[in-house]
Amino acid sequence: MSDVKKVVLAYSGGLDTSVILKWLQDTYQCEVVTFTADLGQGEELEPAREKAKKFGVKEIYIDDLREEFVRDFVFPMFRANTVYEGEYLLGTSIARPLIAKRLIDIANETGADAISHGATGKGNDQVRFELGAYALKPGVKVIAPWREWDLLSREKLLAYAEQHGIPVEMKHKQGGSPYSMDANLLHISYEGRHLENPAAEAEEDMWRWTVSPEKAPDAAEYLDVEYERGDIVALNGKRLKAHEVLAELNRLGGKHGIGRLDLVENRYVGMKSRGCYETPGGTIMLKAHRAIESITLDREVAHLKDDLMPRYASLIYNGYWWSPERIAVQTLIDHTQLNVNGWVRLKLYKGNVIVVGRDSKTDSLFDSTIATFEDDAGAYDQKDAGGFIKLNALRMRIAANLHNKKK
Amino acid sequence: MSDVKKVVLAYSGGLDTSVILKWLQDTYQCEVVTFTADLGQGEELEPAREKAKKFGVKEIYIDDLREEFVRDFVFPMFRANTVYEGEYLLGTSIARPLIAKRLIDIANETGADAISHGATGKGNDQVRFELGAYALKPGVKVIAPWREWDLLSREKLLAYAEQHGIPVEMKHKQGGSPYSMDANLLHISYEGRHLENPAAEAEEDMWRWTVSPEKAPDAAEYLDVEYERGDIVALNGKRLKAHEVLAELNRLGGKHGIGRLDLVENRYVGMKSRGCYETPGGTIMLKAHRAIESITLDREVAHLKDDLMPRYASLIYNGYWWSPERIAVQTLIDHTQLNVNGWVRLKLYKGNVIVVGRDSKTDSLFDSTIATFEDDAGAYDQKDAGGFIKLNALRMRIAANLHNKKK
Amino acid sequence: MSDVKKVVLAYSGGLDTSVILKWLQDTYQCEVVTFTADLGQGEELEPAREKAKKFGVKEIYIDDLREEFVRDFVFPMFRANTVYEGEYLLGTSIARPLIAKRLIDIANETGADAISHGATGKGNDQVRFELGAYALKPGVKVIAPWREWDLLSREKLLAYAEQHGIPVEMKHKQGGSPYSMDANLLHISYEGRHLENPAAEAEEDMWRWTVSPEKAPDAAEYLDVEYERGDIVALNGKRLKAHEVLAELNRLGGKHGIGRLDLVENRYVGMKSRGCYETPGGTIMLKAHRAIESITLDREVAHLKDDLMPRYASLIYNGYWWSPERIAVQTLIDHTQLNVNGWVRLKLYKGNVIVVGRDSKTDSLFDSTIATFEDDAGAYDQKDAGGFIKLNALRMRIAANLHNKKK
Amino acid sequence: MSDVKKVVLAYSGGLDTSVILKWLQDTYQCEVVTFTADLGQGEELEPAREKAKKFGVKEIYIDDLREEFVRDFVFPMFRANTVYEGEYLLGTSIARPLIAKRLIDIANETGADAISHGATGKGNDQVRFELGAYALKPGVKVIAPWREWDLLSREKLLAYAEQHGIPVEMKHKQGGSPYSMDANLLHISYEGRHLENPAAEAEEDMWRWTVSPEKAPDAAEYLDVEYERGDIVALNGKRLKAHEVLAELNRLGGKHGIGRLDLVENRYVGMKSRGCYETPGGTIMLKAHRAIESITLDREVAHLKDDLMPRYASLIYNGYWWSPERIAVQTLIDHTQLNVNGWVRLKLYKGNVIVVGRDSKTDSLFDSTIATFEDDAGAYDQKDAGGFIKLNALRMRIAANLHNKKK
Repeated sequence: MSDVKKVVLAYSGGLDTSVILKWLQDTYQCEVVTFTADLGQGEELEPAREKAKKFGVKEIYIDDLREEFVRDFVFPMFRANTVYEGEYLLGTSIARPLIAKRLIDIANETGADAISHGATGKGNDQVRFELGAYALKPGVKVIAPWREWDLLSREKLLAYAEQHGIPVEMKHKQGGSPYSMDANLLHISYEGRHLENPAAEAEEDMWRWTVSPEKAPDAAEYLDVEYERGDIVALNGKRLKAHEVLAELNRLGGKHGIGRLDLVENRYVGMKSRGCYETPGGTIMLKAHRAIESITLDREVAHLKDDLMPRYASLIYNGYWWSPERIAVQTLIDHTQLNVNGWVRLKLYKGNVIVVGRDSKTDSLFDSTIATFEDDAGAYDQKDAGGFIKLNALRMRIAANLHNKKK
Repeated sequence: MSDVKKVVLAYSGGLDTSVILKWLQDTYQCEVVTFTADLGQGEELEPAREKAKKFGVKEIYIDDLREEFVRDFVFPMFRANTVYEGEYLLGTSIARPLIAKRLIDIANETGADAISHGATGKGNDQVRFELGAYALKPGVKVIAPWREWDLLSREKLLAYAEQHGIPVEMKHKQGGSPYSMDANLLHISYEGRHLENPAAEAEEDMWRWTVSPEKAPDAAEYLDVEYERGDIVALNGKRLKAHEVLAELNRLGGKHGIGRLDLVENRYVGMKSRGCYETPGGTIMLKAHRAIESITLDREVAHLKDDLMPRYASLIYNGYWWSPERIAVQTLIDHTQLNVNGWVRLKLYKGNVIVVGRDSKTDSLFDSTIATFEDDAGAYDQKDAGGFIKLNALRMRIAANLHNKKK
Repeated sequence: MSDVKKVVLAYSGGLDTSVILKWLQDTYQCEVVTFTADLGQGEELEPAREKAKKFGVKEIYIDDLREEFVRDFVFPMFRANTVYEGEYLLGTSIARPLIAKRLIDIANETGADAISHGATGKGNDQVRFELGAYALKPGVKVIAPWREWDLLSREKLLAYAEQHGIPVEMKHKQGGSPYSMDANLLHISYEGRHLENPAAEAEEDMWRWTVSPEKAPDAAEYLDVEYERGDIVALNGKRLKAHEVLAELNRLGGKHGIGRLDLVENRYVGMKSRGCYETPGGTIMLKAHRAIESITLDREVAHLKDDLMPRYASLIYNGYWWSPERIAVQTLIDHTQLNVNGWVRLKLYKGNVIVVGRDSKTDSLFDSTIATFEDDAGAYDQKDAGGFIKLNALRMRIAANLHNKKK
Repeated sequence: MSDVKKVVLAYSGGLDTSVILKWLQDTYQCEVVTFTADLGQGEELEPAREKAKKFGVKEIYIDDLREEFVRDFVFPMFRANTVYEGEYLLGTSIARPLIAKRLIDIANETGADAISHGATGKGNDQVRFELGAYALKPGVKVIAPWREWDLLSREKLLAYAEQHGIPVEMKHKQGGSPYSMDANLLHISYEGRHLENPAAEAEEDMWRWTVSPEKAPDAAEYLDVEYERGDIVALNGKRLKAHEVLAELNRLGGKHGIGRLDLVENRYVGMKSRGCYETPGGTIMLKAHRAIESITLDREVAHLKDDLMPRYASLIYNGYWWSPERIAVQTLIDHTQLNVNGWVRLKLYKGNVIVVGRDSKTDSLFDSTIATFEDDAGAYDQKDAGGFIKLNALRMRIAANLHNKKK
């Protein structure tokens, strides 16, 4: 184990990664570089710097990645109307490849030969971190303490912390936060404890970002969303950067009780797990993006995207953001968004995101003179439909004729 | 045109199909058989019998198809979590193949050589009726008056009606119902008129089956849904037949403002059209079915279904219910439902269908001892994950190594 | 019919299109522009000019499109390893969109408002011509004489020709060429007559471009094929332009009895038809392209391409080359070819195209040190495979456990 | 390691599995049951019994699985026209699930708690054996000696053999067979040694089952193949059992130099490897099955199968035969074969399998009266094609109109 010289640790400043920091120093006798990212999780990052210093860490990275996260990861994913298993908006999955990338960038900058993270051996995040790391730096050594050490129970972890002078907050001593959580600008997630029984309803006080629909305002709120090339560029007429868009949508969604989700999903490592998610802004974005595509995208292109979407979602869920196949699919998706320009009007009300209008000055393929019922200027000859149907039916008629003969 | 001897007409008793009835008698000089179906659209059917008699129709069919409709068409479709273009629950599409089948059955029973319907030449329904008819009786003659006659404006139609003594209700004289509507146990749809501008919000008084979320009860209501082989068999512990299930879900959904949808969709005949739909029961069923599958279905089977779903939805939307490819896909889908047994608990509140719990005594693949974070009895060895990741990363590492060499 | 002023006719100079030329002049009383393309079909084109002049045609286009055809249509298609229904290399299908494009270009240049072609109303080619034309010039008028006129039998056609002084070659009088043929640099096809019985073997003297395997040389011939970005750029070390590559491969394939195909295919218009094809160069290209991809393409990218290929093939077969969905898929395919560089060695012998070696100096992902059986420097730890298998098996083990409990 | 009581070993009687047998007895101090299968590999099996006895094995299974192998594994796979990565007919992959099943059956019969096999840690076969075993008996212990022991070089293996009195044939001492081979009724495969350089041509004397095309007879041979429900039931009019069909096709194919393949494939464990295969009978079957489907299968069903085929092939290649998703896809495939009845005539000549005719008395969907060019009895009205094209073009015309306006 002594062949590691320097390791970059994804460090939150919390108990678990502090224990990991110490454990890495002791076990591998190597230098540790800490990396703490602001992905919009809504926590102070400076305490992480102070803690790292106390452990003698010399190279401390604290990066504000919010804009890059939304612009280069969240937005591209939403261009595909991406949903995993019909429900999950991939809030955790989409942050991991960015963290993996920064870990490797920092390893390259600091001359580190290894990276480390605090994800357990039973979850998807270890896969996402490590597939990304290997794809970007194939010779990197990955240290996943949860798969190596013997601190597999919370009791052992706390004992180790106390033994090594790592401060333990009262909540951890009392059994810790009841849930395993992850947060970034796209979502906050909850797993574990009370949720381990999939038959049991989640407790109302678990949710942090959204009010319940019951407690949301009694008055609906309208919202205008403007798109350029498939990305939101303005809300209610105000141009915003990518992460500002998402922050504002989170505020609005949270206020109106939008974006809660309670589901059982299939992990890449093979088991089912129950998770609860709050994705207020993302829930609004999915609905709005489908609406703007509904008038600007060709039918067959839209269907092609729908056919590829579950595969694309699985790629992201499973940690293959940096894979050549994800990039190939992205090339197609991004190509389709060139004409996805226009606006969508939404109504937000007690958990509902309701599309009430959509249009595009430049790219609407909706042509009311063709779709309507009255006779028109001849752009569409109803008699053509007879031939269309006859030829589409031909193979079935031939088969039915044969079938009748056999009887 | 004189080669038709007897034609079976899908007859609602309304103005349009009454004009068609008369027009068929005059134009084709043939006998007309009328067929009126109760699909749960919530209209009296006996008036259709009286009207048909007045036109001298001798063979009048009025069938209660509600159970067959839900059991053999709606339920099989929901086994696939079927949604067209990400939003539409196919309420109109799924009724057409049953009507086509009955038209052909009646043609065979009465010795008719033709069928006729009131769908226009610009919509999907003509395709759905006729593909079904041709697939079931390849030599049948199809008469689609809207594609043949010169009554293409409402004015001409009304003039024809008055001229031939067909009673015209006041609403028609005043410009008629503002929307083109279709209803059955699964949904009611609205098209045309005020909706032809996709930028404009639908008017509140258009909606008929649901209250608005704003007017829904302030108290949430819980609902227990029980599944056997992927179909709902009981609500709140009470066993019901298929159509009773849907009727009750419609009642509950309508009461809680659930299932409104406003979208622009791509028609099979090539144009975009804007439609509004109320699908209260269907909206509940989709959510509940995904939930029961989430604990009973294998991951890869679920993903296979998700990959095939858009294609299956297009088959139904485009009118290919009676095609061999739809039947082949159905074979696969039905096979996957054998273990989809258990229950789902839902909370209905002001437009929201919220899954709060799910379980299966006999078929739950959820195993909390494997998914949880604490050390366990060895069913899952966290160290295995390292190898899993390493091998999944191998191809990307080889490629990255090559890439590095090239630099 | 008098609203057409000028029509561009795809004119071969043969009997059928000469009759069409005359018929257009008579029926539509419009000016006709002829367009004759050299796609490598191996016929003299100047006689077409002389014939057109005799009909009084003033604007005569005769274009050598061979390079554009192979470079911009054939090669892009082969990047996807495109095969329709497992067998057909789409030799006819891929030429049609180029002809459609030139018809429209010429219509725009000459101010014509219509185009016309000699494809029948039962085949795929009418669809391919017209979908392309409509996509490129949505207001164009299309005249398809075979769907309009009453010359539907060969006897009537010959009578019309004689009546209008159109020279009829002896072969036509004797019943004409026994087959309906189409040729270009990619292939020659045969349909009709003796082939209408799918049980009957094609006659040896039908084939024109290839010797039979039996008559091919007794000595095999080796061939080195060099790729850049998925396209062949050199044969046996000699750099060639796209169409020169294909011409040379046709020569070699034809000499060695390569590329004959006899099949029943499903036409887009709904019926099955039996066709025979000679595609000597294309048959070699398909085999070689798969071989170069086998060492340069990532596994999952290759599988993604394989999954999309049948759809892409159908798009081309059905005439959707100029559709947005074909272009979207092409964007993905072309992106995947950036690293498809290297060479393939083939052995040609009596109908066989045998890959005997392949390599890439710059882009080979084949790493013999990893794949081999002896212990190596640690790039691959065999123990990792245990974890890989265990986690991939987990969901099936959980299901089997449940199944055992149920028994 | 002492917790294993009895292990069933897939035992060939060769050097490697003999070393494993001894190693298992020594290392695990457990009883070993040997299982040797006749899959048509063409080797004497009784010597394996004698060898096992010498090691003190008490429970020795030697099973003739040829019929089961072809009937329940090979034939179902060929119903899907299954090819991995465009070329490989999965000869090794399809045998593994049967061996896994028998290992588990025997474990259940003999009360064994573990199984073992001789597949290395770098290949696909370990995955196939073990995924099958885990799916069928989730609690089984799997011992994969090549991933555990330190005999990773051939020298160490030979030393172990001599040390423990295991007879080593002369060929092994001299460096052994130059190739790693696997054989069964479907194919024989070669890997390793001279093939590790993908640029180098395989040596002629490597091939064992087929003559080279050059040495095949100068006269072609015709062969009639008869299908029922997608499976071959007779050759040249003689009804045969499944394995007899394949044996006879191997004889014919081998005689005519048919079925050699040299390729680089992507292993599931992540690396590329070069393999050579002889699959004479399978090569004939693939061609013939496509031919019989070409006249009996509906177009869209055939295309659905083509779309699913690469996924189905990967499932088998990767070892998921016993997975629920493979079984679900098989349900669909088998359903499609009900009408695949008829015959195909083939011509075999020097490496070529040429389809020359095909027909079906009961299920041919080929209708020459519709496909032909002359005017006919009205089953197909050419004018219908105009409407068919117009409606299919509509969305592209609307888009082009918009595009023109933007210019």
